[in-house]
Amino acid sequence: MRSGIVVTGTELISGLRQDRNGPWLARRLRALGAEPAQIIQVADDPEEIGRALGFLEDAGAELIVTSGGLGPTADDLTVAVVAERQGRSLRLDEPLAEQIAAIVEPLRRRYPGLDAAALAAGTRKQATVPEGATVLAPVGTAPGLIVPSTRKRAPLVLVLPGPPRELQPMFESALASEPLRSLLAGASPRREGTLLLFGIPESEIAQTLRLASDQGLDLSALEITTCLHRGEIEVTCAYAPAAEDDYRRLVAFIAERHPRELFSSDGRSIEAIVAELLLARGDAIAIAESCTGGLLGARLTELPGSSRYFRGGLIVYSNAAKEALAGVPAELIARHGAVSQEVARALAAGAARALGAQVGVGITGIAGPDGGSVEKPVGLVWISVHLSSGLQGGLTRSVNLPGSRTDVRERATTVALHMVRSALLRALSDGNNDGAPAARSAG
Amino acid sequence: MRSGIVVTGTELISGLRQDRNGPWLARRLRALGAEPAQIIQVADDPEEIGRALGFLEDAGAELIVTSGGLGPTADDLTVAVVAERQGRSLRLDEPLAEQIAAIVEPLRRRYPGLDAAALAAGTRKQATVPEGATVLAPVGTAPGLIVPSTRKRAPLVLVLPGPPRELQPMFESALASEPLRSLLAGASPRREGTLLLFGIPESEIAQTLRLASDQGLDLSALEITTCLHRGEIEVTCAYAPAAEDDYRRLVAFIAERHPRELFSSDGRSIEAIVAELLLARGDAIAIAESCTGGLLGARLTELPGSSRYFRGGLIVYSNAAKEALAGVPAELIARHGAVSQEVARALAAGAARALGAQVGVGITGIAGPDGGSVEKPVGLVWISVHLSSGLQGGLTRSVNLPGSRTDVRERATTVALHMVRSALLRALSDGNNDGAPAARSAG
Repeated sequence: MRSGIVVTGTELISGLRQDRNGPWLARRLRALGAEPAQIIQVADDPEEIGRALGFLEDAGAELIVTSGGLGPTADDLTVAVVAERQGRSLRLDEPLAEQIAAIVEPLRRRYPGLDAAALAAGTRKQATVPEGATVLAPVGTAPGLIVPSTRKRAPLVLVLPGPPRELQPMFESALASEPLRSLLAGASPRREGTLLLFGIPESEIAQTLRLASDQGLDLSALEITTCLHRGEIEVTCAYAPAAEDDYRRLVAFIAERHPRELFSSDGRSIEAIVAELLLARGDAIAIAESCTGGLLGARLTELPGSSRYFRGGLIVYSNAAKEALAGVPAELIARHGAVSQEVARALAAGAARALGAQVGVGITGIAGPDGGSVEKPVGLVWISVHLSSGLQGGLTRSVNLPGSRTDVRERATTVALHMVRSALLRALSDGNNDGAPAARSAG
Repeated sequence: MRSGIVVTGTELISGLRQDRNGPWLARRLRALGAEPAQIIQVADDPEEIGRALGFLEDAGAELIVTSGGLGPTADDLTVAVVAERQGRSLRLDEPLAEQIAAIVEPLRRRYPGLDAAALAAGTRKQATVPEGATVLAPVGTAPGLIVPSTRKRAPLVLVLPGPPRELQPMFESALASEPLRSLLAGASPRREGTLLLFGIPESEIAQTLRLASDQGLDLSALEITTCLHRGEIEVTCAYAPAAEDDYRRLVAFIAERHPRELFSSDGRSIEAIVAELLLARGDAIAIAESCTGGLLGARLTELPGSSRYFRGGLIVYSNAAKEALAGVPAELIARHGAVSQEVARALAAGAARALGAQVGVGITGIAGPDGGSVEKPVGLVWISVHLSSGLQGGLTRSVNLPGSRTDVRERATTVALHMVRSALLRALSDGNNDGAPAARSAG
């Protein structure tokens, strides 16, 4: 089943804002077996919205989802355009108007200066809906709509509000409504599997897929997409449930060919994997970061519950901070420079010591755009993982990262997380090789 | 002049990735006076790409910009589709093939396992271009193209590669080429002004714009867009140079009505403004953050040269870290709780002290989704700014932030940066009121 998405917003077409609704809707629609063939962004302009609806219908969409243009003001015009396109007149839905008025009431009290007449007009406007449409209860103030056409073989239009916080729950509740349920009954839901790899170029995955085909694996039922994202390669496969075995065989093939590089085959992020490894060992982590300025800490605390394994961090941007907080000897910095293997090691050990953690990470590098030299160019980052477990003593390496200041900083945190994973895996397997549980010491 | 954008990529239409090229191209095209009316995302599929080109032409686009589908493999089909649409046959451009081969050579050496025949085929594919097209030199391996149509009144198509790092410089160099120069000579470039406000609801700006109109300001020549972004309101105006005075009058009106809330009228971010205020006073800043886990540090070090004013930070996620690193008395945490006015103050002062900075910031809050209580719900964040300048003693407040864990964390850093601005402005103006330069002390 084909679908299409129309995202309205002058701020999008002006390039002022990235759209988040298109990708979210696309992924949900794909899972339901109604993958969109197009996502169109247009200004909040009735002519453009109408043109986009017509285009998607001509392209064969059976379901069109719109986002935005449901606000209380006169320039929010999506409902009127959709009603006209679907051949339906508009009427004021009185109970809905009362419902919206009740939602707006607290706002009116909080801001007593608001214009009461304008507010009432806005409420009436938002409660004016096409005849024969299914109304979806507001999450914010705007109701959503499911609008069938009076014409035969015309697409069903699902009208949703622009704020993602409203759109997402409303989409889910729309799925339970009659018109969408019966339309989607004819679609074939698809599964999605994601493999994450780190440490090989994207072209190598293309080569692996070719090899898999050459060796007789049937990939024809798998829609495979590969992307480079924050330094990791993401291989996503969408497939009908009947192709589950084809998918499993492909996963096994990739796992065999890239045993070190494939780090996730169930959608878990590197942050989640590092968290699990730390929890498995009962270890806590502490960090000392220079050029990344807090980004590694931010990633390590993205997941709820991170206080169970993240002890804290030192943002040691200045040399004085490296010395005072992480205990890096001034002499070491003077001899090797702040961006050096030695200082990265001292930062990792210093972080673990200062915060009483079993695992320490140190990052020091040149994020640019200035500050590079021939010997130490922009993009050079030294990263060290310190394990105070008495097992293998950790891991220190340098990387030369391409791109902008933002790219270098972000990529450095990705490399650091993968180094933590490698060090912890080695420590765990060493522990297992001894037949003993992973050793622990207070560091 | 109307333009349109086609962004190709199965990963976009599947919702796996957000598109960055559409917004970037849209903003550049708007500045050139060729604002796009639509941005269309389609899969890497010749039929879909062709359909999107036809739609944009029918909608009146004089210029179409495509992004993506220029890779070396057979499934990258943008060039063939554009050539057909523009009525042009394809030919191998031998010098271009040599140029691409030279670019690919180092890659071949780095990965000796790569298939040489496949590599050569890819090079030939990328050097196969439409007759009569202008070739844009590769930034990565893919050349760009400017393809005029053999039909009259058909749009010019600018074909660009997908990676933003390649697309952006190539777009700029394309502007210097003959076909685009003469097409855009007929366009009216537009200026863009951005106002940033903090601390009022978005509806208040709508009200201000209505008032401005009521009081006789002519806003008809200004295309005004308002957006809420990371807790700040961004008001962007695009206008022809002739409307410069209208724009200036609007800025003055908004500045008069929102003197405290309008913090930037020249596009400078809050990070840049805080940096300038610190540099103006010759002060350094240090931070101690709990729930934000490093995000404030990351924002304070986003700008190159931040080492001139950012001393460092403490990520004090655990109570033990709050005590050990920021010197918060255990007794204070026990009495008031880790999320409290008292602990926020102690963190701010402790950060300044530990890092020898004149300005300290402390953040402690409940980012959720768990850990909230009736008294201290998820979203409650205490933020404190400590000034060890002997002037006004700083600023401490709590906020109740809505949304997800990510929203709360991000929004808290925005509030903190604005509190630093307020505290520094007050300190600077107090210093000026004395007729003396802003006082300084080592804290």
